[in-house]
Amino acid sequence: MTLDLEALYIDLHRHPELSFQETRTAGVIAHSLTDLGIEFEEGVGKTGVAAVIRNGEGPVVWLRADMDALPVPEQTGLDYASTARGTDPAGTDVPVMHACGHDMHVSSLLGALERLVATKSEWSGTVVAVFQPAEEYGAGSQAMIADGVLDRFPRPDIVLGQHVTPLPAGTIGVRSGTQMAASDGLTVTLLGRGGHGSRPQATIDPIVMAAATVMRLQTVVSREVDPRDVAVVTVGSIHAGLKNNIIPAEAKLELSLRYPDDEARARVLEKVERIVRAEALASGAEEPPVIVTDHSLPPTINDVDATARLTAAFDRAFGAGTVIDPGMFTGSEDVSWFAREAGVPLVFWFWGGVDPAAFAAAKAAGTVERDIPTNHSPFFAPLLQPTLANGVENLVVAAREFLTDAPA
Amino acid sequence: MTLDLEALYIDLHRHPELSFQETRTAGVIAHSLTDLGIEFEEGVGKTGVAAVIRNGEGPVVWLRADMDALPVPEQTGLDYASTARGTDPAGTDVPVMHACGHDMHVSSLLGALERLVATKSEWSGTVVAVFQPAEEYGAGSQAMIADGVLDRFPRPDIVLGQHVTPLPAGTIGVRSGTQMAASDGLTVTLLGRGGHGSRPQATIDPIVMAAATVMRLQTVVSREVDPRDVAVVTVGSIHAGLKNNIIPAEAKLELSLRYPDDEARARVLEKVERIVRAEALASGAEEPPVIVTDHSLPPTINDVDATARLTAAFDRAFGAGTVIDPGMFTGSEDVSWFAREAGVPLVFWFWGGVDPAAFAAAKAAGTVERDIPTNHSPFFAPLLQPTLANGVENLVVAAREFLTDAPA
Amino acid sequence: MTLDLEALYIDLHRHPELSFQETRTAGVIAHSLTDLGIEFEEGVGKTGVAAVIRNGEGPVVWLRADMDALPVPEQTGLDYASTARGTDPAGTDVPVMHACGHDMHVSSLLGALERLVATKSEWSGTVVAVFQPAEEYGAGSQAMIADGVLDRFPRPDIVLGQHVTPLPAGTIGVRSGTQMAASDGLTVTLLGRGGHGSRPQATIDPIVMAAATVMRLQTVVSREVDPRDVAVVTVGSIHAGLKNNIIPAEAKLELSLRYPDDEARARVLEKVERIVRAEALASGAEEPPVIVTDHSLPPTINDVDATARLTAAFDRAFGAGTVIDPGMFTGSEDVSWFAREAGVPLVFWFWGGVDPAAFAAAKAAGTVERDIPTNHSPFFAPLLQPTLANGVENLVVAAREFLTDAPA
Amino acid sequence: MTLDLEALYIDLHRHPELSFQETRTAGVIAHSLTDLGIEFEEGVGKTGVAAVIRNGEGPVVWLRADMDALPVPEQTGLDYASTARGTDPAGTDVPVMHACGHDMHVSSLLGALERLVATKSEWSGTVVAVFQPAEEYGAGSQAMIADGVLDRFPRPDIVLGQHVTPLPAGTIGVRSGTQMAASDGLTVTLLGRGGHGSRPQATIDPIVMAAATVMRLQTVVSREVDPRDVAVVTVGSIHAGLKNNIIPAEAKLELSLRYPDDEARARVLEKVERIVRAEALASGAEEPPVIVTDHSLPPTINDVDATARLTAAFDRAFGAGTVIDPGMFTGSEDVSWFAREAGVPLVFWFWGGVDPAAFAAAKAAGTVERDIPTNHSPFFAPLLQPTLANGVENLVVAAREFLTDAPA
Repeated sequence: MTLDLEALYIDLHRHPELSFQETRTAGVIAHSLTDLGIEFEEGVGKTGVAAVIRNGEGPVVWLRADMDALPVPEQTGLDYASTARGTDPAGTDVPVMHACGHDMHVSSLLGALERLVATKSEWSGTVVAVFQPAEEYGAGSQAMIADGVLDRFPRPDIVLGQHVTPLPAGTIGVRSGTQMAASDGLTVTLLGRGGHGSRPQATIDPIVMAAATVMRLQTVVSREVDPRDVAVVTVGSIHAGLKNNIIPAEAKLELSLRYPDDEARARVLEKVERIVRAEALASGAEEPPVIVTDHSLPPTINDVDATARLTAAFDRAFGAGTVIDPGMFTGSEDVSWFAREAGVPLVFWFWGGVDPAAFAAAKAAGTVERDIPTNHSPFFAPLLQPTLANGVENLVVAAREFLTDAPA
Repeated sequence: MTLDLEALYIDLHRHPELSFQETRTAGVIAHSLTDLGIEFEEGVGKTGVAAVIRNGEGPVVWLRADMDALPVPEQTGLDYASTARGTDPAGTDVPVMHACGHDMHVSSLLGALERLVATKSEWSGTVVAVFQPAEEYGAGSQAMIADGVLDRFPRPDIVLGQHVTPLPAGTIGVRSGTQMAASDGLTVTLLGRGGHGSRPQATIDPIVMAAATVMRLQTVVSREVDPRDVAVVTVGSIHAGLKNNIIPAEAKLELSLRYPDDEARARVLEKVERIVRAEALASGAEEPPVIVTDHSLPPTINDVDATARLTAAFDRAFGAGTVIDPGMFTGSEDVSWFAREAGVPLVFWFWGGVDPAAFAAAKAAGTVERDIPTNHSPFFAPLLQPTLANGVENLVVAAREFLTDAPA
Repeated sequence: MTLDLEALYIDLHRHPELSFQETRTAGVIAHSLTDLGIEFEEGVGKTGVAAVIRNGEGPVVWLRADMDALPVPEQTGLDYASTARGTDPAGTDVPVMHACGHDMHVSSLLGALERLVATKSEWSGTVVAVFQPAEEYGAGSQAMIADGVLDRFPRPDIVLGQHVTPLPAGTIGVRSGTQMAASDGLTVTLLGRGGHGSRPQATIDPIVMAAATVMRLQTVVSREVDPRDVAVVTVGSIHAGLKNNIIPAEAKLELSLRYPDDEARARVLEKVERIVRAEALASGAEEPPVIVTDHSLPPTINDVDATARLTAAFDRAFGAGTVIDPGMFTGSEDVSWFAREAGVPLVFWFWGGVDPAAFAAAKAAGTVERDIPTNHSPFFAPLLQPTLANGVENLVVAAREFLTDAPA
Repeated sequence: MTLDLEALYIDLHRHPELSFQETRTAGVIAHSLTDLGIEFEEGVGKTGVAAVIRNGEGPVVWLRADMDALPVPEQTGLDYASTARGTDPAGTDVPVMHACGHDMHVSSLLGALERLVATKSEWSGTVVAVFQPAEEYGAGSQAMIADGVLDRFPRPDIVLGQHVTPLPAGTIGVRSGTQMAASDGLTVTLLGRGGHGSRPQATIDPIVMAAATVMRLQTVVSREVDPRDVAVVTVGSIHAGLKNNIIPAEAKLELSLRYPDDEARARVLEKVERIVRAEALASGAEEPPVIVTDHSLPPTINDVDATARLTAAFDRAFGAGTVIDPGMFTGSEDVSWFAREAGVPLVFWFWGGVDPAAFAAAKAAGTVERDIPTNHSPFFAPLLQPTLANGVENLVVAAREFLTDAPA
């Protein structure tokens, strides 16, 4: 029985699911694992799946892929573009799209498992495949840990994971130390006083309060952080009001903050909170804003020794120059929790899924108007191949590097 | 058969309906008109109802009441508070409340019709009762006109209407000339470029564009309009984004603008458009914003002679000092279209529904924390009585003033 | 001895002087009064001049003209345009211009005195001419009062004054009740922390603090004042920093606020202070801003009876239709203090100095690019005639209205 | 004849001079060079001084010190604090202070020259001492080059320079590659329309235009630059208006921009210009803003080989650990032009002038309230010693490293 990985990828892409709702995705994974004869459990951390290949003495290597999609309206124009919709935590019906490539992650990991099963005679040790839900909420790895994944399955000696990006296909990006930023997601509710749109003087306008707050929040990065340090303060959503002629009573902002370490985190959070509170005072708000932390992600720090070892392995396998230092990414990940909790090394790398030359040609020809789209864009569309084949190969090479070679 | 007006009002208050969805309200009206033996038609302008009392020779007096409610979450704490929900034009499920008192308008008009039927021997002429939908969208009177209300029913010699407000109960406010402002409702869509919240440099952030636009729009009133002129620029809703870590591709603003006349309208619209376009340029937007006019309401101008006549009638009926000049209201109405289209005079007045002394006492006692709530507030709650009785009486006095007294 | 009023006006226009520095102006006035044989004192309220014509029994009529000019660089292109410079209170060298027409006020009052002296046989009573300094600082009338002007000269039965404006020449504007707004002038010092322009994180940037404050102050008028009420919040000056690469330690704002009455004054001042303080908090300022009131002007309220009497007199003298209701002006005056302190009526009117038809023709011909310039503009240039002749005549008619006619 | 370096430093500190006005400073330098018997010329690049020690065959080493002070009001409380004042290019009287330590640079270079003269037997080659004016304007090195400094004096084989900073005394900070940012200084004049403060509708308010521009400029760094890249957009001065009740016709902003390289420079300049122009459009400005580049400084890039050699020399001379990598500085320098123009290597390093432990103790004791002040702060105050001795020693060690050792 052989997996048809391309069909599997297209199927997942067509059926994206929001965080902690990845039930169909889990079903596809479970079906594939059954075909491969691999032992697994579903429902680990709500909708996660964990699988084990036990192959004699040797290290335990965890390979992790995240499963969830995003509330983004796909505009790629692909044959297999998503038209799916879902219900977000607020109960709103939203479009859903694999705009971050987690479908590629799942497909690659299933392909790698197939290869590791087929080559069991060449290695010994244990491989644990972790199909993690809700990475986009920064909550899935903690949910799996809370559900006992570290105890119910062989504890790792190393945790490995990968992410597809708009690097050129054939390139792998990885660096020692901080690879991805720490991040917090905040929801800020600004409390004003509602009334008729024609009588602003009887209200405390929360939309003006929100606008002033958004403008002032820009100064955290522009004025209060060392220009040489990485910091991001994004207001990713703003919602207030139902009708042009009613001034609403409140406004909601969702913020995404990024920093390289815990010290910077504390400093930026203090500044954001200071500004949010002061702008409410400037509006004459009768109640202070409500600030809630929705999630808090640690920095993704690659182990120095393991990264050096893996970089060498990639260069041996794919040719010198395959691995580049992509710099620190300002995006964040929750894969770190597995390694932090187990007290073992982590290596998390990026692999490329774009043909820049073909893209430039298409743009020159007028077929494409935009630049290469980034993750989370409605136009995000990694090449199916060689990206999928590379994703499989990366995981196989990486796993084998940290497993024991079987005696000849 | 006698109408139980208080029960009718409470029933309408409990079952508010959004604009052009007033089917249950129309049913209640139809049922009451049938009980009163008054001829009527439903479905005039989608969900409107028009009724006629023909009573011999004489002028045709139109009495107009609006029917629709608002997407406001009722917080009055009344026994008969609304818990209703509805679906707004965007398909969103929203709370619904009679936060503008249209339930009081409908009940008062039904009560007045009952009185006019009962006193037919005292007057002659024709009374047309216009139960208008969708005043809150500024679209209902035009819908009824488009549906032939002026031809299918006796054309008016005068159009009369009234609105309940937080004036003291027992007071009527009316003035000659501009009584309510002209108004436009605009939807502005700001077009940016979406992407991951950690990579703002790859995006054109529409939320920052929106915030800067909202702040700049304040300067229309603060700097560009003569301080002695009335002008309002309200941003009543702002919506962008689904998640803290995705920068969305666009933001939507809904604006409500107010002015005393058509010249001011042209000037303010030009300024608003100038600012919206320039702020998009400041953001480096690749496409200009889309600005759509959702509705455009004329000023509500009370006929000088008819207003003088009606004021005298009210003072005779209710005592000198009942009528005050409430000044121009910055709110707007679409009742004018009936009179403009027919080329006849209009008088539109306000009547009070609040006991300020009782309110002040409750506030002093700590039972109530807020000031007297205005129309469109979630706390808006006119006294059931004497407001309802006054609303009935106002319409009867006003109609009789412009009808012919029957020969003794 | 006859005054050459045109030459006198041109001389004053060429030699404008800043507030409380009107020494040359006082000299010209003194010289003219001496020529006319009128008794006077110089140095009343620093640089003011008061003169008396005693002419038997009868009322005491005060005629007031203000003397000072403004730090505005004249750009009228007139032959007699000012090239003068002065030193402002901060010690800065500035251009000076009669951009508010006080040169016209002084010339007109001297002309009126000449006429009143020449016609002594026709009237009886006392005329006091008050040449007041420092109207632009809102400080001159109080300085004269503090210097005893009400005791050292006959106390008024009525105070009269006039101001030249861009109304059409031949028109007089005056209304009963509030004619000009109350006003406060504030200086706000925002305290930050200075440092090198390349290291903003080590500073508290007072320029960003000032910019956010200015933007937020717009919302007082746009959101917090009844759209039907008059209110102005102008930031007339902003100063911070000496060099592009040094972030300064503080920023200074000068505000001019306007309101129709004392209640509105209290409300607006509270809002302005609230915003200024909150924006400093938003910046993380270590010290609160310093807010100083530089001057506080009462509303200019025209006495109802005296205004009616004067309006009738003007219409009799100059023809019906000469007097219009100019509406309330948002500008402010300190002339009120004389009448308030003495407890007597005040009438303060405007007279026109522009030929709109000629202006429109010049604009059509391309000779002039701008609209008719307002007071305080560098282009402000009332027509020399008939403005000057009218200014004289207005004062004579007004004074005579309140003096006693001599027995024939 | 021995220089009293401490007295010389204190004298310079007490008599700071603004850029291109360093005539007294040049006199002190000339006097000292005469005492040391060193050949020199004054007036090189207006107020600069260049000196030469010719000592046989060997490399030509340039040692550069900048001379000018800043318009900062000294608040150090030092015995020898400056109370000097100067006239800035706008003709304004301003306080002047050596807030950037150039007095320490001059004193150290004179001390180093004394040592090099005294030890002539130990080395051979040529030392050129360049006392450069107007570093703070970014204009002095170009002025000296334009005045022929590279031709009138021996051309360098290497250019060396140093800057005192708030690093701990005893520490030297230097790195290969980009050591300091590139920088532009811009003056932006925003053109509005002036008028009376009570009639904003007749004006185009340049202060609101400026405030909106300042707020929007924050988004260049916060939204449009990769969070991992260095960029600074500082508005270091803002000036508009003379009086609270006159709305001025224009506002002036001075901007300081920083970037690591020429590509980033082009991108940021484009964004700044885009925002400035769009905000003028948003205000309805009748004329576009005027944007002038006052100076443009290249990045300060340390030669890789020469830096390695110098680092080793410092560590040998002062002990391992003396040299740290201070990271890239966001400040800028014009020293590069000498090396760029001559096509030779540059090394520019920082040396420490603070005792952090003593500072912390003083703060704990309440003697000092602030953190260690940075360059350009009114509190900037390097320790006289060992800073001065170290500054001398650094230059001697560095010069000797690149000169030839004399044969034993």
